[in-house]
Amino acid sequence: MLNKPRMLTPGPTPIPAAVRLAMAQDMIHHRKPAFKAVMAETQRLLRPLFGTAQPVLPLSCSGTGAMTAAVTNLFSAGEKVVVVEGGKFGQRWTEIARSHGLVPVVIEVPWGSAVTAQAVKQTLEQHGDAAGVLVQCSETSTGVMHPVREIAAVTRSAETLLVVDGISSVGLSPCPMDEWGVDCLLTGSQKGLMLPPGLALIALSERAWARTATVTPSCFYFNLRAERKNAEADQTLFTTPVSLIIGLRESLRMYEETGLEEVFRKQWALTQMVRTGVSAMGLAPFVAADYGWGLTSIALPGGIDGTAVLAHAAQHYGVIMAGGQDHLKGRIIRMGHMGWVDWGDIAAGLHALAESYRACGGYIGCRDYIEQALQAYNEALLSYAENNPFA
Amino acid sequence: MLNKPRMLTPGPTPIPAAVRLAMAQDMIHHRKPAFKAVMAETQRLLRPLFGTAQPVLPLSCSGTGAMTAAVTNLFSAGEKVVVVEGGKFGQRWTEIARSHGLVPVVIEVPWGSAVTAQAVKQTLEQHGDAAGVLVQCSETSTGVMHPVREIAAVTRSAETLLVVDGISSVGLSPCPMDEWGVDCLLTGSQKGLMLPPGLALIALSERAWARTATVTPSCFYFNLRAERKNAEADQTLFTTPVSLIIGLRESLRMYEETGLEEVFRKQWALTQMVRTGVSAMGLAPFVAADYGWGLTSIALPGGIDGTAVLAHAAQHYGVIMAGGQDHLKGRIIRMGHMGWVDWGDIAAGLHALAESYRACGGYIGCRDYIEQALQAYNEALLSYAENNPFA
Repeated sequence: MLNKPRMLTPGPTPIPAAVRLAMAQDMIHHRKPAFKAVMAETQRLLRPLFGTAQPVLPLSCSGTGAMTAAVTNLFSAGEKVVVVEGGKFGQRWTEIARSHGLVPVVIEVPWGSAVTAQAVKQTLEQHGDAAGVLVQCSETSTGVMHPVREIAAVTRSAETLLVVDGISSVGLSPCPMDEWGVDCLLTGSQKGLMLPPGLALIALSERAWARTATVTPSCFYFNLRAERKNAEADQTLFTTPVSLIIGLRESLRMYEETGLEEVFRKQWALTQMVRTGVSAMGLAPFVAADYGWGLTSIALPGGIDGTAVLAHAAQHYGVIMAGGQDHLKGRIIRMGHMGWVDWGDIAAGLHALAESYRACGGYIGCRDYIEQALQAYNEALLSYAENNPFA
Repeated sequence: MLNKPRMLTPGPTPIPAAVRLAMAQDMIHHRKPAFKAVMAETQRLLRPLFGTAQPVLPLSCSGTGAMTAAVTNLFSAGEKVVVVEGGKFGQRWTEIARSHGLVPVVIEVPWGSAVTAQAVKQTLEQHGDAAGVLVQCSETSTGVMHPVREIAAVTRSAETLLVVDGISSVGLSPCPMDEWGVDCLLTGSQKGLMLPPGLALIALSERAWARTATVTPSCFYFNLRAERKNAEADQTLFTTPVSLIIGLRESLRMYEETGLEEVFRKQWALTQMVRTGVSAMGLAPFVAADYGWGLTSIALPGGIDGTAVLAHAAQHYGVIMAGGQDHLKGRIIRMGHMGWVDWGDIAAGLHALAESYRACGGYIGCRDYIEQALQAYNEALLSYAENNPFA
């Protein structure tokens, strides 16, 4: 009882009480009118979140399932796709593509950097037959945000479909599909949407839907055309995670009440808060410039074991953060600031980070890193309209 | 407030309060020690339910996803499989098999009847190269129970793998994998397990695991060998529906406390209760002999519209039942008696059925059908040890 648990990971995130209570309601049957009403309202509320007039389809799977659904419904074996690989989830695109017989053309980007639209353009010029570009909006393994809007400006005038993994960005930073010309956007429930994991969402552009007519889905379970037909009747193809959909409706009502742009403003300000606090401590954000708005990776100096810092923060402060993956294991800490999290939680998270870093041998000279961080938060809120990169 | 809602469908079922409250706890992270402890306990409790010493793997998908996982991990394109098709879910096996390039040899069984082990044996003699037999334990579209134990006696001495869809039977009627020689058993969360949908469970026999070493899974998302490797570390391959797993632990604790055989006894007795009540009303169970223990289909006389009966029961009595599918639409009513449902709910369900049938033009001559049903329930409880077909 000394510490309240605070989950500051890049998903799952804490769940609002309203969502938990909604999910604890009496179960309803997924083929009956009561469920159809939930689906209809959910559809209405999801479209602004994805910035699309197209249906946003719920799938019973993790985010990786939705990535698999995108690849297997938009492309056929033997086709070439350009993959932006700047982290673990970029690599996952390559694995999925290869596993389903596509020919990935990989743009390797150092972990911690964003791809440039120019690099995508050049690759597409070299591979004029590429049927798609697969990219993350936010690469969750590093916290990088790739320039989806600029890449879309390249692909929208070509035959190439732009497929965006928005797992740690939908509802956290702008990615209006129709306006930018994104052909496929997908996400999971356990990030911006403040739900438990187990539900994925996917939307396709008009031309991506046209494309699906020419592709035979290579996995029986993922059939987006059949899902769309069901969605038109406020149904799903197979049994759906009913309680997660009910929770989703609640979460989307919170989004509607607050306003999507207001949530983006909060996310931008939380990001500035973490970056300022971490820099004030004498640590450095791992991503220099092109950072996402839902998590911040923090680079640790050599000699400090990130795994020990995480364990200390969990044990002594109740703050759960994530570590690095693969070659970054132990070298970075990923602090999530997405979902049902606010400035108060982040202030607590910064304190836990600083004290745990110190306990593991690090040096923190500064005494007012929390005040600096909170000031940055307030300033970012006020200057969001001019200063955010989508302004 | 006149009627409490009573969901008597063959899944989803009502959820016990203990499970709902467990699922409403603070979210935990799926890669941290707190989750690993849940997975470890869940694994321990799942094995008796499946009657196996092998791991029982949770997948983030519906039951159809687990069926897809079985087909894509046990068989390769071009291989022949024998499919028992006696309803909508038998047909689904055929669709999945065909969609992944297998060659299904279909044993057609009239909807409402069970296949015989003899028919499976003869088909296997004609198709000595068949790599597997795909069957439902309980065919949810009709309520038939296929003779899995007898089929296993045929397949266990051959090279053929027996793959059993236990979606509406696991935890409801016996299907001990190891003892019977079943090679793959799978289920969904929203049936016997008293959870919301969104989680599937699958277990393989030793020889089925050996088989997976020779198969390249044809869908990236379903990789059972990689899942097993993760399960050995109390993990899952991809992000898992954390709250459903926490709910599962709670449901399995209830199973452990009550005893699996006691739950089977209850299910057997509820089945006798529904069959007796329905017969006393002058209606006939759709399945004459080989019936499952989780749902009972009721045949309606010509001229009675089953859809209208269902709507009346829902509107005037708060009782939600399911109708027939495909050519049985409007002709049968499927009353679920699985999950968090007891004799009191079934008494209410029988009353709603009788009154709604009457309101839609049916004739009920009998006045004491509820008493007869309850008597049958009590007698079945007492005589379970001698009278159930697995005695």
